[in-house]
Amino acid sequence: MSATRRRRAVVLLSGGLDSATVLALARSEGLACYALSVAYGQRHRAELRAAARIARRLRALQHRVMKVDLAEIGGSALTSQRARLPTKLAPGIPPTYVPARNTVMLALALAWAEVLGAEEIHVGVNAIDYSGYPDCRPQFVAAFGALAVVATRAGIEGRAPRIVAPLIAMSKVDIILLGTRLGVDFGATVSCYAADSRGRACGRCDACRLRRKGFEDAGLADPTRYR
Amino acid sequence: MSATRRRRAVVLLSGGLDSATVLALARSEGLACYALSVAYGQRHRAELRAAARIARRLRALQHRVMKVDLAEIGGSALTSQRARLPTKLAPGIPPTYVPARNTVMLALALAWAEVLGAEEIHVGVNAIDYSGYPDCRPQFVAAFGALAVVATRAGIEGRAPRIVAPLIAMSKVDIILLGTRLGVDFGATVSCYAADSRGRACGRCDACRLRRKGFEDAGLADPTRYR
Repeated sequence: MSATRRRRAVVLLSGGLDSATVLALARSEGLACYALSVAYGQRHRAELRAAARIARRLRALQHRVMKVDLAEIGGSALTSQRARLPTKLAPGIPPTYVPARNTVMLALALAWAEVLGAEEIHVGVNAIDYSGYPDCRPQFVAAFGALAVVATRAGIEGRAPRIVAPLIAMSKVDIILLGTRLGVDFGATVSCYAADSRGRACGRCDACRLRRKGFEDAGLADPTRYR
Repeated sequence: MSATRRRRAVVLLSGGLDSATVLALARSEGLACYALSVAYGQRHRAELRAAARIARRLRALQHRVMKVDLAEIGGSALTSQRARLPTKLAPGIPPTYVPARNTVMLALALAWAEVLGAEEIHVGVNAIDYSGYPDCRPQFVAAFGALAVVATRAGIEGRAPRIVAPLIAMSKVDIILLGTRLGVDFGATVSCYAADSRGRACGRCDACRLRRKGFEDAGLADPTRYR
């Protein structure tokens, strides 16, 4: 390894607002970024096309899309074509929760990070303005970090990738302000769970509501394309 | 849930000797077993056909094969068609190690377990007569168990699936004796990393050597079909 080798990071990139900001932040820190998206059977496939656009614009060195069909095992409104999506933020874990999704995604990121010799894995989870998913909380991130140490050859050699979740304690407003400062084109991101094939948002689902409120509270024009 | 509902377990089933014994053990304990195999791009696809046979014979309620292509990210002789397989047991982690493989498999098992409401996930990892893979050690199993608690809705509700690794401290001889007592047809299992399309073993790779020595030390005829 040369002295000038840049630090490498695998960045989980969904195509939404949060992970785009994470990628922009990692790039601004000079990291060599390897963007990873996971086609897990989500109904909103438009987010994967958004991820490809964002990876290109933010100059990730590679953008990999891995497939694993969580829809076949069911258990989530987000991987069902039939289930109704909630249109209100209610207490508790909503039906859009996908069992073990972030565990699966981080596991795939860990595999790629180990092959790349990446020092870090970046993930845009957030436990403030979020849907209450268990695998978006700081204790989840910490537990996965501890797992990475014992699960891998890299860990045995004392260089397990660190799990970096820079947005974990940030409000949606702060994330939007940070992304704006970093030049993220939020109009290219897709957050909506029911986005149409052209990436236009419904304006009514959980994800749309959190996002819209974020732009309002930030005092910024909402660049989202609604249908 | 009725009072007579049987305890449910997702059982990771590779098609090899160890996981077949784990499934037989879980069945002998009266568990309702859901067998999960993962087509991760392993060169020895014959093990997946073996897994289907074993699941049927040991009366798993379902056998699911999930696909996730770890071969595309490389980093292992086991997912490469070109790499040479080691024929000696040497110190250190061998090139057949697949980065984060067991993390990925347990993540998928966790997803399915949560959808099923399964109380347990059974996995045939073993840290005695093994290849030195980091993700076969007790500390890995413990760390994944801790992750499952914070990663899932089930965990929040106090019913995260427990990770059960009944073979973790057993020698290959003891596993073979246990499986034999439970009536496992080891001739139907495939351990060889270079098994041909009919499931016949090479007799030379790590996995073959560990297995052959196990039958020898147990004083049992080796039912493996060699080519």
